[in-house]
Amino acid sequence: MSDTVEMAPLDEAGPRRVRVDLGPRGYDIEIGRGVFDGAGARLEALFPGARFAVISDETVARLHLPAFRKSLEAHGLGHVALTVPAGEASKCFAQYERLCDAVLDARLERGDVIVALGGGVVGDLAGFVAASVRRGMAFVQVPTTLLAQVDSSVGGKTGINARQGKNLIGAFYQPALVLADTGILDSLPPRDFRAGYAEVVKYGLLGDAVFFAWLEENWKAVFAGGPERDEAVARSCLAKAEVVAADEYEAGRRALLNLGHTFGHALEAAVAYETERLVHGEGVAIGMTLAHEFSARLGLLDTLDVERITHHLKEVGLPTQITDIPGQMPPAETLMDTIAQDKKVSRGALTFILTRGIGQAFVERGVDPDAVRTFLEEKLHP
Amino acid sequence: MSDTVEMAPLDEAGPRRVRVDLGPRGYDIEIGRGVFDGAGARLEALFPGARFAVISDETVARLHLPAFRKSLEAHGLGHVALTVPAGEASKCFAQYERLCDAVLDARLERGDVIVALGGGVVGDLAGFVAASVRRGMAFVQVPTTLLAQVDSSVGGKTGINARQGKNLIGAFYQPALVLADTGILDSLPPRDFRAGYAEVVKYGLLGDAVFFAWLEENWKAVFAGGPERDEAVARSCLAKAEVVAADEYEAGRRALLNLGHTFGHALEAAVAYETERLVHGEGVAIGMTLAHEFSARLGLLDTLDVERITHHLKEVGLPTQITDIPGQMPPAETLMDTIAQDKKVSRGALTFILTRGIGQAFVERGVDPDAVRTFLEEKLHP
Repeated sequence: MSDTVEMAPLDEAGPRRVRVDLGPRGYDIEIGRGVFDGAGARLEALFPGARFAVISDETVARLHLPAFRKSLEAHGLGHVALTVPAGEASKCFAQYERLCDAVLDARLERGDVIVALGGGVVGDLAGFVAASVRRGMAFVQVPTTLLAQVDSSVGGKTGINARQGKNLIGAFYQPALVLADTGILDSLPPRDFRAGYAEVVKYGLLGDAVFFAWLEENWKAVFAGGPERDEAVARSCLAKAEVVAADEYEAGRRALLNLGHTFGHALEAAVAYETERLVHGEGVAIGMTLAHEFSARLGLLDTLDVERITHHLKEVGLPTQITDIPGQMPPAETLMDTIAQDKKVSRGALTFILTRGIGQAFVERGVDPDAVRTFLEEKLHP
Repeated sequence: MSDTVEMAPLDEAGPRRVRVDLGPRGYDIEIGRGVFDGAGARLEALFPGARFAVISDETVARLHLPAFRKSLEAHGLGHVALTVPAGEASKCFAQYERLCDAVLDARLERGDVIVALGGGVVGDLAGFVAASVRRGMAFVQVPTTLLAQVDSSVGGKTGINARQGKNLIGAFYQPALVLADTGILDSLPPRDFRAGYAEVVKYGLLGDAVFFAWLEENWKAVFAGGPERDEAVARSCLAKAEVVAADEYEAGRRALLNLGHTFGHALEAAVAYETERLVHGEGVAIGMTLAHEFSARLGLLDTLDVERITHHLKEVGLPTQITDIPGQMPPAETLMDTIAQDKKVSRGALTFILTRGIGQAFVERGVDPDAVRTFLEEKLHP
């Protein structure tokens, strides 16, 4: 912990536990090194007599599936393993249908369990399968990326991509348990860890200035994998859990979690989701910078805050400008089309997450599309 | 109304209204002649400023879509009409994907409305589309068959069929309104009306002996289309609404609504869903007879009750025996395979709805598969 920025300590003994308080749909997130190895014991206790379908992608299956299966087998838990190709392209109708079919072929019943072992793509896809096979099976998230641990595995948003944009088909469907092993993140490529870190920064920027300041001082330890990493993951999950508990179905406040995401999604679409050019967290890093710059342009925010945020994202190695993306970008009009089709649009008016300062984001409905277009044109051709 | 069997009168003035009491997800079912023509006014009042996607099948589109669109246009409600081929085969992944894509192409937003104009196939399919596009859009059911009015449009079960069986992929997703025009049923082929009537009988058999007796006396008026028809539809919706309100996600009591459906589904699968041989309601009529015969075989039920039920189903023109189905049937083992894969199975034990008398159905978990197999063998080769 930093000696200049103090946060209230979380429980320090053993894995940290964050509760997502959704009444009958509430669940625990267990965070720490070694949580993975205890998976079999936890699942046996939570789902006595159940069978499991473990869904992962080819990369995760190679790295982590043998150990996970061993943990299940040590407790005599029957299971099938289903694997999709790595990458965003697997969040599609074809893989969704293939997985539903495989789960039914394995004769899993309503009380049986779908386990998502992987990153955000696997979690979103497997979650939608769990939501819809037999109109809902039990679901467990075992996120293996930082992005999934602090964002996509928490809160119950599941889904696949459509031709028209990301995550446009899906369900709100809560897991029964999330097992977030922070030690497993040691095997992540640095670029993927950085991308996930963008979402950690987001929680500071949207509502917790103390956490942002703590990250400025402690980010190297978070990257290196000390107790600061567990702290950052737990703090992020806690922030998300609070927002989700207040607004499970995104009627209002939950939209705050989209800070940086409207711009970010448009940029991902603009590069046709080519991850060589841009991964999701990088899009969020640029998108958050743009959201703060746009807020400053509207006179809501001090430009010193923009500089501070930009400085931190840059020092960890994240991109902050559209011009940081390699290759040709489409015209502003193409980005606007994606933004207009984004599901955060309501009745033709644009909804953006804007901010009045670090930790002071808010939902603004009715943003002027012309102002956004002009802003994007300048950012595309500075 | 019969002068020998009295039921508590429902509100007689104007359309009858049945409330499905699910708290924030509660909604009204409006039942009566002419409800259809008032659709535009009702939708304008309930969804000011919204746009609509009206999903129907080719048969319904030909008969009813022009009048429905006229009602929307009279109130200036923007809409697109989307049509699928008539028949159970449209409850498939391909049509689901095509409709999701079309709704997104029409740029409908989260507050906009999916309308299911049609029978059970259209309602189940459109409901799953509504449940999953943008993780949930507003949804309205305008059922045009008796089956849909008394069963599938009420209670929020949506979904499509899988290779392994019917309705194995879907969501619990409640409509915001159901408009059940009983006059529209005048255009139904008699065979379809009869099939829907099997589900009306089901409500009597599962929990309301007075209603069953009333149907025995008044069925001709229900078929002819007098106020008795409105009464029968309202009484059925009320029965279903009560069960659904008590058990929205089918954790227990809601399974009662499956009376006759486990056998019925197996028979539908056995004829490969060829509607020339068997439609759903006919499968339910045979399935209900089998459930009562099997209950009698177990000593739970008087055979006089079986005879009374069989007599009534026969007099309205419904089949009651497996041998009533034209063509060759598969061996009992094939039917057992479908029953075992049915989602009403839990941990290998068979769950059936059995009965101790007319109006006294109950959920029996742990039915002996061998007893069912032997029973089916006898029914296949009497």
